Amino acid sequence: MPTMNRQWILKSRPEGDIADSDLQFVETPIPDVGDGQFLVRTIYLSVDPTNRIWMSDQKGYMPPVEIGAVMRGISLGVVEVSRHEGFAVGDIVSGLGGWQDYYVSDGAGLNKLPKLPGVPLDAMMGLLSMVGFTAYFGLLDIGQPKAGETVVVSAAAGAVGSIVGQIAKIKGCRAVGIAGSDEKCRWITEDLGFDAAINYKTEDVFEALQEACPDGIDVDFENVGGHIFDCVLRLINFKARIALCGLISQYNAPEPVPGPYALGNILMQRARMEGFIITDYHARYGEASMQLGQWLQEGKLKYRVDVLDGLENTLAGVRRLFSGANTGKQMIKVSDEPI
Amino acid sequence: MPTMNRQWILKSRPEGDIADSDLQFVETPIPDVGDGQFLVRTIYLSVDPTNRIWMSDQKGYMPPVEIGAVMRGISLGVVEVSRHEGFAVGDIVSGLGGWQDYYVSDGAGLNKLPKLPGVPLDAMMGLLSMVGFTAYFGLLDIGQPKAGETVVVSAAAGAVGSIVGQIAKIKGCRAVGIAGSDEKCRWITEDLGFDAAINYKTEDVFEALQEACPDGIDVDFENVGGHIFDCVLRLINFKARIALCGLISQYNAPEPVPGPYALGNILMQRARMEGFIITDYHARYGEASMQLGQWLQEGKLKYRVDVLDGLENTLAGVRRLFSGANTGKQMIKVSDEPI
Repeated sequence: MPTMNRQWILKSRPEGDIADSDLQFVETPIPDVGDGQFLVRTIYLSVDPTNRIWMSDQKGYMPPVEIGAVMRGISLGVVEVSRHEGFAVGDIVSGLGGWQDYYVSDGAGLNKLPKLPGVPLDAMMGLLSMVGFTAYFGLLDIGQPKAGETVVVSAAAGAVGSIVGQIAKIKGCRAVGIAGSDEKCRWITEDLGFDAAINYKTEDVFEALQEACPDGIDVDFENVGGHIFDCVLRLINFKARIALCGLISQYNAPEPVPGPYALGNILMQRARMEGFIITDYHARYGEASMQLGQWLQEGKLKYRVDVLDGLENTLAGVRRLFSGANTGKQMIKVSDEPI
Repeated sequence: MPTMNRQWILKSRPEGDIADSDLQFVETPIPDVGDGQFLVRTIYLSVDPTNRIWMSDQKGYMPPVEIGAVMRGISLGVVEVSRHEGFAVGDIVSGLGGWQDYYVSDGAGLNKLPKLPGVPLDAMMGLLSMVGFTAYFGLLDIGQPKAGETVVVSAAAGAVGSIVGQIAKIKGCRAVGIAGSDEKCRWITEDLGFDAAINYKTEDVFEALQEACPDGIDVDFENVGGHIFDCVLRLINFKARIALCGLISQYNAPEPVPGPYALGNILMQRARMEGFIITDYHARYGEASMQLGQWLQEGKLKYRVDVLDGLENTLAGVRRLFSGANTGKQMIKVSDEPI
């Protein structure tokens, strides 16, 4: 049993892109486990665009990470030591474990994950997790797609986007994805079944969207913002729904970024735009988990994880999100799964 | 009975502000009245921000007015000649009569107005009309205000805005209006009962809003867009509702105008923004009319009309909307009411 814990500490709030000096990789002793507590070893760490939001001091949906604190992050780990009645050694738990090898918890905010036969642990991070729940509730609750409608999703080869398009297909919609490479476009159309894909780095997004959405756009699952969002807004249909999930194009911006020029089209088309944060759906995670798991077992849903090895590469993993290097769920493998 | 009809013809599509040369004021013979038709003499003509939208060729909620056609506009008039079973001489009708003294109709799209004792004809344009219906459905259906919440309305001394704030008060909300002069601010607070008013021409809108909305903003009835909207967005509460009714600040813009910089706050606060156009509520006008009429008779609702005399002053009336010269419903008196 090791005694030392590697941790990423937030040293300063990034201005624009995250600088190496904004974080510090340190080693500290593993804390003692008190009564009613347990020790978790991190197996996988999730890196997400929201990490960047948590580093800043802007008004967000959670308080900013304090300077000097361990960086906040979603992780999946195994209980190694327990003095808590509800958690036994070997239990798999997920939650805000942070960017570190080990943490001590009293269980607050953690979920104990079922061990599902035939479902590998990475699926618990790449699909049956906030990733899949975000796609599920954002598309179905906010987007309310109806069979025959056209659904557009940006960052479509990302963790959430790739699942959004597949659920749209399950619901009988036309699914159009916007992604950042020909390889990603091939993956979402050929492997995942999207009807069309647009490479925003090489194509004129507006023209390509016009072609890919001959009947206009009924639902937009928005992950990106900026110019891509503007192009989508110009093509929305009467009573279109926009599920505002993320605005990754502007999280790193050092200065305020203007909103869409085509805002007036929300008025003209009587459209609805609604922001959501997946944690608000906490009480309904079970419903999403069961449905997603069923689709997975039926072969209707595929997921892909993009795993970087080593806690020391966490910051590099975050940067992959912002450069669009990842395909599928970007995660960090911190330690080996228990056998 | 006169034989000539004065009309405003759209000659060219305005770029930026409407130029005198974009419209032409002409005289043509009054058309013949065929079987199943009737002739309407315009009494009042409504001028509205949407007139500017109809002049442009941008994708709107109605087709653009054709070049060479009579300018589209909402009017209220009296039937002078009838060869239609459903409409008798003396009936008062409202609808898209256009910018002209007379028009011939087969009744399509027109509403016959009841003659209500004690309710002057200008109330049928300034309150019991699309003006009042817009305030009613936009605030109650889209905004869904709950007692104790804070409602902000921009263009608050305008036709719609002044009614929005009063309905908010009837529903037990805190009503805060943004308007363009101290006189308007006094009117909406002292006469109409708004809790606070902000003069956007002399005050720092964000700071003034912060002070006027100590508990944040739950509902925004948005008529203006631009910087004012951005300030509101920065202060919205969790699950705020934005009824997007108009964006008058940008209808005259010669170049595309960026959307709000604070768009991300819609995500962070899980807010909902929804555009609406009052004609979509056509089937429910009766409901609004009855409720507004009742509030008027109970003294809970006041309206104000801002009447310019003479069809020849219609363009001047539209310009008053964009400069903010009007208080209450801007309308044109085209001819005298029948006795």
